[in-house]
Amino acid sequence: MIDVCLLGTGGMMPLPDRWLTSMVARYNGSSLLIDCGEGTQIAMKENGISCKPIDVMCFTHYHADHISGLPGMLLSMGNADRTEPVTMIGPKGLERVVNALRVIAPDIPFEVKFIELNNDFESFKINGYLLEAFKVKHGVPCYGYTMKVERKGKFNLENAMALGIDKCYWNKLQNGIEVEVDGKLYTPEMVLGEERKGLKLTYCTDTRPTASITENAKDADLFICEGMYGGNDKDDKAKENKHMTMNEAANIAKAANVKEMWLTHYSPSLPKPQEYKAEIRKIFPNTKVAKDGRSVTLVFED
Amino acid sequence: MIDVCLLGTGGMMPLPDRWLTSMVARYNGSSLLIDCGEGTQIAMKENGISCKPIDVMCFTHYHADHISGLPGMLLSMGNADRTEPVTMIGPKGLERVVNALRVIAPDIPFEVKFIELNNDFESFKINGYLLEAFKVKHGVPCYGYTMKVERKGKFNLENAMALGIDKCYWNKLQNGIEVEVDGKLYTPEMVLGEERKGLKLTYCTDTRPTASITENAKDADLFICEGMYGGNDKDDKAKENKHMTMNEAANIAKAANVKEMWLTHYSPSLPKPQEYKAEIRKIFPNTKVAKDGRSVTLVFED
Repeated sequence: MIDVCLLGTGGMMPLPDRWLTSMVARYNGSSLLIDCGEGTQIAMKENGISCKPIDVMCFTHYHADHISGLPGMLLSMGNADRTEPVTMIGPKGLERVVNALRVIAPDIPFEVKFIELNNDFESFKINGYLLEAFKVKHGVPCYGYTMKVERKGKFNLENAMALGIDKCYWNKLQNGIEVEVDGKLYTPEMVLGEERKGLKLTYCTDTRPTASITENAKDADLFICEGMYGGNDKDDKAKENKHMTMNEAANIAKAANVKEMWLTHYSPSLPKPQEYKAEIRKIFPNTKVAKDGRSVTLVFED
Repeated sequence: MIDVCLLGTGGMMPLPDRWLTSMVARYNGSSLLIDCGEGTQIAMKENGISCKPIDVMCFTHYHADHISGLPGMLLSMGNADRTEPVTMIGPKGLERVVNALRVIAPDIPFEVKFIELNNDFESFKINGYLLEAFKVKHGVPCYGYTMKVERKGKFNLENAMALGIDKCYWNKLQNGIEVEVDGKLYTPEMVLGEERKGLKLTYCTDTRPTASITENAKDADLFICEGMYGGNDKDDKAKENKHMTMNEAANIAKAANVKEMWLTHYSPSLPKPQEYKAEIRKIFPNTKVAKDGRSVTLVFED
């Protein structure tokens, strides 16, 4: 299962009642943070989530509202005695930007590893899940991210017993590892049913609508997407500022056949994004016009 | 008069109910901001104070909790269409630190001027007030600041009339400028009484007690001072971390004969600094254990 918390829903600048957009996803003891604007560490505290276990930080891009909280976050993780390395992933320039910001956070007791994205699509197997980065369309290089947890087929106890495989090898086979016992080879396929539906979470802000978003969000259990502006009269403004309207986001959610969409990254000029809920739900019914701190636990089917 | 607002009272890291320590003082259309940690721009909005008119920013030092909010603040000032220059004042290294942080705020529509402090004491006449910087004692170069508004003597109407000075010259004389009319020289002393008591505000955090603080806070109307720890049992911790206990701050306030002291910059380990109020007031009765947003308007006597 994945515990998801949308820490903030604001774009451009933090407001007294709206943190900047960022998300934390916790899976199997690992914490993935996407973006870290000014105040993100406070939003985490408000939601009772510790910053210490963050082992992966992804950045969509380097506009200040998506990374200005990083120095403070690193220091707080250090003050919490984190010593394990942290992997940062983001568009080209990551190391230069992070190291510049670290002028005020030079001493932290853990290593920072950098993975810079250069292609339209890149994927990583990390901490037991699959992390995919896909390029979107903003004024600067910008990426969306998908977190996928795969689910193996059901363990077929009868097959394992019939084949006479000793219990001590079951775990290996369950985890996809072949086993040889007394010259006999046992493969996972012998004891596992068909792969089952896993979990998929796609996150994407600061972009015009693109085919890559629809492709990458395909059939996601949860799609967190920017809805910078409400109403069709904001189409031109969205185009000009390389952002999306809520309607555009809803059309992507529909085309991608996602289970549920959460809107986020509202313009500071939009004090009540909820006002557009009914209109957006006409396009994609399972839309949540999210507020700060919206959380869910994504669990496997059945 | 000076409008003072203590925007935050936290040290080290921002908390859900406590912004990082910083202060804004507004005088005659000019806004002076001292320190700008993560969230300071939100604290300003909460207190209904616009960031656009900030024309002077002073930094005590460059630990992240005192400057991490700068990139976001600069961008918000730019978004508010500020075009007039901003003067920044701080210890040596200011330009290097600010320019590094501006990796995420490269485009702002106003000029930034830098004044780096190198001496134990420096003073500046700026925007109609006197700004004094004095070195304190922290782990890194760190300064306290005093803002002084001087007050000229009372205008002596009778003298002005008796001397037959035309009304159109009164304003110049009142502002300390000599006037020559028909070969006759009129000096301000001819029409002004003795200089009257002005206003003095002294601000100081992140330091061990020093003689320089007592000297510089002498007779201040308001002394805003760090009280990182409460209780005498924290003396060693304060020494070790180069901070001050509330009792040490109160002893400075007493020795400096200030009118009123506000404590600030509480340790995150101190959830209820108010608990120490009675104890501190035994040393310096007019102590306020300040909370975020504490405000006052300092006005001239009589």
